[in-house]
Amino acid sequence: MKLNLNFLSVVLLLFIAFFITYITKSAAQSVQNTRVDMEIPDIDGFITLKCDLHLHTSFSDGVVWPSYRVEEAWMDGLDAISITDHIEYTPHSEYVKIDHNAPYELGIKTALIHNIILIKGTEITKRHPGHFNALFIKDASKIANDDYKIAIEEANRQGAFVILNHPREAVTDNRDWWTEELNALFENGQLHGIEIFNWNDYYPGAFDLALDKNFTILSNTDMHKGSEYYKSHLRLKHRPMTLVFAKERSVQGIKEALDDGRTAGYFKNSVYGKEELVKELFLNSIRIKKAHYSDTGSGNAFVEISNISDIQYTLIPLNQNKKSDPIQLEARESSIISVPMKKAEESITIEYEVENILISSSEKLKINLVFRRD
Amino acid sequence: MKLNLNFLSVVLLLFIAFFITYITKSAAQSVQNTRVDMEIPDIDGFITLKCDLHLHTSFSDGVVWPSYRVEEAWMDGLDAISITDHIEYTPHSEYVKIDHNAPYELGIKTALIHNIILIKGTEITKRHPGHFNALFIKDASKIANDDYKIAIEEANRQGAFVILNHPREAVTDNRDWWTEELNALFENGQLHGIEIFNWNDYYPGAFDLALDKNFTILSNTDMHKGSEYYKSHLRLKHRPMTLVFAKERSVQGIKEALDDGRTAGYFKNSVYGKEELVKELFLNSIRIKKAHYSDTGSGNAFVEISNISDIQYTLIPLNQNKKSDPIQLEARESSIISVPMKKAEESITIEYEVENILISSSEKLKINLVFRRD
Amino acid sequence: MKLNLNFLSVVLLLFIAFFITYITKSAAQSVQNTRVDMEIPDIDGFITLKCDLHLHTSFSDGVVWPSYRVEEAWMDGLDAISITDHIEYTPHSEYVKIDHNAPYELGIKTALIHNIILIKGTEITKRHPGHFNALFIKDASKIANDDYKIAIEEANRQGAFVILNHPREAVTDNRDWWTEELNALFENGQLHGIEIFNWNDYYPGAFDLALDKNFTILSNTDMHKGSEYYKSHLRLKHRPMTLVFAKERSVQGIKEALDDGRTAGYFKNSVYGKEELVKELFLNSIRIKKAHYSDTGSGNAFVEISNISDIQYTLIPLNQNKKSDPIQLEARESSIISVPMKKAEESITIEYEVENILISSSEKLKINLVFRRD
Amino acid sequence: MKLNLNFLSVVLLLFIAFFITYITKSAAQSVQNTRVDMEIPDIDGFITLKCDLHLHTSFSDGVVWPSYRVEEAWMDGLDAISITDHIEYTPHSEYVKIDHNAPYELGIKTALIHNIILIKGTEITKRHPGHFNALFIKDASKIANDDYKIAIEEANRQGAFVILNHPREAVTDNRDWWTEELNALFENGQLHGIEIFNWNDYYPGAFDLALDKNFTILSNTDMHKGSEYYKSHLRLKHRPMTLVFAKERSVQGIKEALDDGRTAGYFKNSVYGKEELVKELFLNSIRIKKAHYSDTGSGNAFVEISNISDIQYTLIPLNQNKKSDPIQLEARESSIISVPMKKAEESITIEYEVENILISSSEKLKINLVFRRD
Repeated sequence: MKLNLNFLSVVLLLFIAFFITYITKSAAQSVQNTRVDMEIPDIDGFITLKCDLHLHTSFSDGVVWPSYRVEEAWMDGLDAISITDHIEYTPHSEYVKIDHNAPYELGIKTALIHNIILIKGTEITKRHPGHFNALFIKDASKIANDDYKIAIEEANRQGAFVILNHPREAVTDNRDWWTEELNALFENGQLHGIEIFNWNDYYPGAFDLALDKNFTILSNTDMHKGSEYYKSHLRLKHRPMTLVFAKERSVQGIKEALDDGRTAGYFKNSVYGKEELVKELFLNSIRIKKAHYSDTGSGNAFVEISNISDIQYTLIPLNQNKKSDPIQLEARESSIISVPMKKAEESITIEYEVENILISSSEKLKINLVFRRD
Repeated sequence: MKLNLNFLSVVLLLFIAFFITYITKSAAQSVQNTRVDMEIPDIDGFITLKCDLHLHTSFSDGVVWPSYRVEEAWMDGLDAISITDHIEYTPHSEYVKIDHNAPYELGIKTALIHNIILIKGTEITKRHPGHFNALFIKDASKIANDDYKIAIEEANRQGAFVILNHPREAVTDNRDWWTEELNALFENGQLHGIEIFNWNDYYPGAFDLALDKNFTILSNTDMHKGSEYYKSHLRLKHRPMTLVFAKERSVQGIKEALDDGRTAGYFKNSVYGKEELVKELFLNSIRIKKAHYSDTGSGNAFVEISNISDIQYTLIPLNQNKKSDPIQLEARESSIISVPMKKAEESITIEYEVENILISSSEKLKINLVFRRD
Repeated sequence: MKLNLNFLSVVLLLFIAFFITYITKSAAQSVQNTRVDMEIPDIDGFITLKCDLHLHTSFSDGVVWPSYRVEEAWMDGLDAISITDHIEYTPHSEYVKIDHNAPYELGIKTALIHNIILIKGTEITKRHPGHFNALFIKDASKIANDDYKIAIEEANRQGAFVILNHPREAVTDNRDWWTEELNALFENGQLHGIEIFNWNDYYPGAFDLALDKNFTILSNTDMHKGSEYYKSHLRLKHRPMTLVFAKERSVQGIKEALDDGRTAGYFKNSVYGKEELVKELFLNSIRIKKAHYSDTGSGNAFVEISNISDIQYTLIPLNQNKKSDPIQLEARESSIISVPMKKAEESITIEYEVENILISSSEKLKINLVFRRD
Repeated sequence: MKLNLNFLSVVLLLFIAFFITYITKSAAQSVQNTRVDMEIPDIDGFITLKCDLHLHTSFSDGVVWPSYRVEEAWMDGLDAISITDHIEYTPHSEYVKIDHNAPYELGIKTALIHNIILIKGTEITKRHPGHFNALFIKDASKIANDDYKIAIEEANRQGAFVILNHPREAVTDNRDWWTEELNALFENGQLHGIEIFNWNDYYPGAFDLALDKNFTILSNTDMHKGSEYYKSHLRLKHRPMTLVFAKERSVQGIKEALDDGRTAGYFKNSVYGKEELVKELFLNSIRIKKAHYSDTGSGNAFVEISNISDIQYTLIPLNQNKKSDPIQLEARESSIISVPMKKAEESITIEYEVENILISSSEKLKINLVFRRD
């Protein structure tokens, strides 16, 4: 019987070993890819899509492969990207065969798996009158041309949405940077949008010009190194992005929204855009819990206000509301605030300025919040 | 004029200094109290309330003041608490005047401000047959009595919901700990619930007995020190709690749910409860995004699955689903998983065991997930 | 034999169950109390002690018990605290017996266990000429007196170090707040230190006065609620503190250092103190790794600079160093920086201003960093 | 004068605007690259270097450029890496020109800037008898050969240190995977090390064989995607690595240490290695603060124990120390533990097993800790 007893022991121990191995291994293998979801609320009638429409890979002067740009986008919580390698600048050409359509071809399968919308694009890179991203193109190689006018014309022929990239001089009110060449492209309907943010730089002059001319604004990273480097280097909590307010989550949905100018820039925890769009974004980000109202005889009432978004907001009461406190609404946190509401009042309305929502280079969003008695 | 210019300079500089001071100070003063919101989904027809119904203060052997127990509850994301100081054990009595109703009186104003539901309670603390929390009482001092039977009778007279606390021996199948005295209280309808978790201890035997006898289960911290100490000491991400599935967010709502047995224990990232309740909690925690389905010819299809809750789930496919991978669903994260779906199939159903949802001490929740083609 | 086999199975399974339980339980019970160590470097000849010398408990208007103030101090990484309950303001006296020596008595045992230096103290709380902390006292009850002069005299008789608390008007250059009464105490040698920071408020005027008069500076929290509330409410990464540069880690060591004025304020990631002390603190916080020097022909050289402390520093090169970059030195991180060093140079010296070290209310620490070729 | 006043205003405002811009911009541009320092203590006589000696780039089947592998290594806190692209497997060859020496050439400049030691390597990739990394080679293209024997011979001729990669079957005691071919290479002195960890897999059989045969052990990631993906996908706090105990921080220092077998594997918060090496690593990781000893009459004494490293340790007291508690030593944290020391004792020695340091596949490190009275 000794044998049998040993046999049982062995069986049991093998089972235990197997069980532990199974559990451990299973858990480890289970993950395909995971991302922290970033909550940016939809606005009425539109889905808010998180986009980065200016990216480079090893096919121009970047250091990652196109498929990995897609995986980074997934990990960073984005909905859509465009890989826009330079046509004219390809420093890796000693080792990498230059094929301007390759980045899209090498990224699309990974995009399908990760449900990332990959928009075919390229960067037309001229010293004068500037760099331009052409998005929604069909064939990047046909766009290659020494003459920028011909290149942009071809892009438009393919149905492209053309963007003026990083207008680096647009940091003051001076509009010398808006050259006749640029204006001609714009007047001809060949130039459709402008970056108000690129890499780590904000162009307030471009923001104001876009508002004046009803130009579509964009905010892109123009990443050349990996996304991890970018976030670590610039110490950013979230990747800068163009918010696109689309009718549907698709390439066509993004195109229609860009054509209609329904975008906002979101970078460094601030939102830049047209008042009617960003006001809704803010209002859909917060919840004022009426149920929570309580009067403790202090002359103040207490209200719970929640920020359901991943954008942190700072609200400063306007001058006429001197007794009110500023409000700091951290991402996905709730705060108890006190409001100067008298005992007999049914509600109180306080006007705030949202410090980190800009509706022009010099104006912050003003908003009325109504606090109601329980 | 030099004077005037200087005067203006001074005025301007003072203004700037004031402005900076104002902004800084305002921002600092703006916050009343902030908490990270903890997302535990509601279930159909009921609001899920996060409760800790066993707490001590300086009025028995705890180290914090009643009002601060309420503030801690707010910071930890709870909806309701009960302060249940020992009637029979008051080691601070050299310094603190013993008044069994004081903890509630000293906590209720802070509770109103923070929208925390404060349930009046006390702990009847007898060596035999055990410790009992009496919740929803009217006057704790009347409950003080050397005879546990009289104390519990008085609590019931006041309409109390009475809980057996920390049945420490209930860690095996052996039910010797369920003494005749306890059974008599239960049969008399004077004992209504039982802790299956207390401080850092889980009592599987209590969980099974509660399921057998249709006893209401509770999971409480029994904190004596501060909440920060508790979380740091036990290295917990979330405070253990009783989940109460209530018809309304009120004292009455909680009472009705406890009476009806609609609770679950949530501690150490695991959920314990009746199958019909916790199954819904799980299903309301996840989103399977059909739109994301994509076939890449690998014989597998890819699906995006999101966990919108703050509970982390681990899913192991059951034996008949050998080709499927386990799924790790981190709190508020999304994962891309591959499922073994053939090209012609419209959908596939996979049965999983949810590793961290227990429907008895030895059974995990089984769940069918249906993945549909886009 | 069936029985025997079953018996063995049961024994083995029980063993396994026991083993798992043992491991789990052991691990859980193993922690007595844990804290993240906060690295603030020592300076030459002195140990840097992290102190909070102004705290309240339930014995005046606070909400925690004295022993828990000590546990909080441990968790927050401090070396020493003083509980300084108000003599004159005891709003909990309906429930808490007022004994001005009780806080120390109720805290000292926990202090011994946690190696926290507990300094006996009290707060003399007068509308005029102000609030004073008396530290290192022998009997707080003897200090109770309606006449502030008598109270402070008695404190001094007991060998106290007396501090002027929160001079709230000391926020400009105007010194009206420094009344004749205060000056008389100072001139008599009865007033020895002054808070330049309290709760969330900084008093630049107090800092400058302390530097002028060789007064000892302090930075304390004046906490009334729990430490968790304090940090959450003010969104602080570290608890404000008085850095005491002591010859030994003891009550006497702290007393001698306070008497000699060897302190600095550390709050909101900035350090305030005498140049000779804080300069050393900075220099002992960083390491410039010579070995890492490398020239890549860019006209710049690359140097690795590490911050071994938990204080984050920002360095701005002074005007004469126009080609140098500012340096951000995160806590316990290393950075690669480029310095404008020519090929033939053996070393380069760059003068920086440390943005977050103040040596008076209007002067930042200036420092020369020498970068040497490998 | 109106003009002048306006002029002054403008000057002042411009100055302010400039100042804010300057500060903001400066701070942003200041960072070259930053990393959190990972603290793994040196051992007596040797520097502990953190190495990942198995990595891929776009030049074989990876998705990042060689220079970015170096930047990732810096960000992850490593000292040294080797890029070991497959000679025989180059799926990107449609776009990337295959040059087996290119990865080193394209990485070395970035390595010099970041003080990362870049070791020239390649992977000889044969179905039988396996995959081999050749490190410290001179010319990878000369190693390309269909016959593995010739390839390995050439690598050795170049002075290579040759490693058997991921022996996937080495997960049990069965040594069938140690084929005659492998043994022949070993006996000929042509095979010098073996991976006991690769990607997410641990090979206990390889660990034991290495201990038996005095083989050098390695633990590498074999990353193909970016480091961010790797850490996110496997939910790792630290990147797995080979710890090399070197006489100097240089290519030569690493070579000498590998030749002498002075390495350990560090992955998933566990350390694997020869007892004499890992024992020192542990002892240099902790500090027992004698000064902190205190007896409170409980029959127990209290000791503060600090973990200065970034490795988390769990200590379980051995059977003869029944009254002692397990100890959890979190990275860079301190704990207060109680030890069963009688009043008359001057010191107590307790033997622990360090749960996460393995000195063979089945043995944990045993260690005596001595606690001394103050």
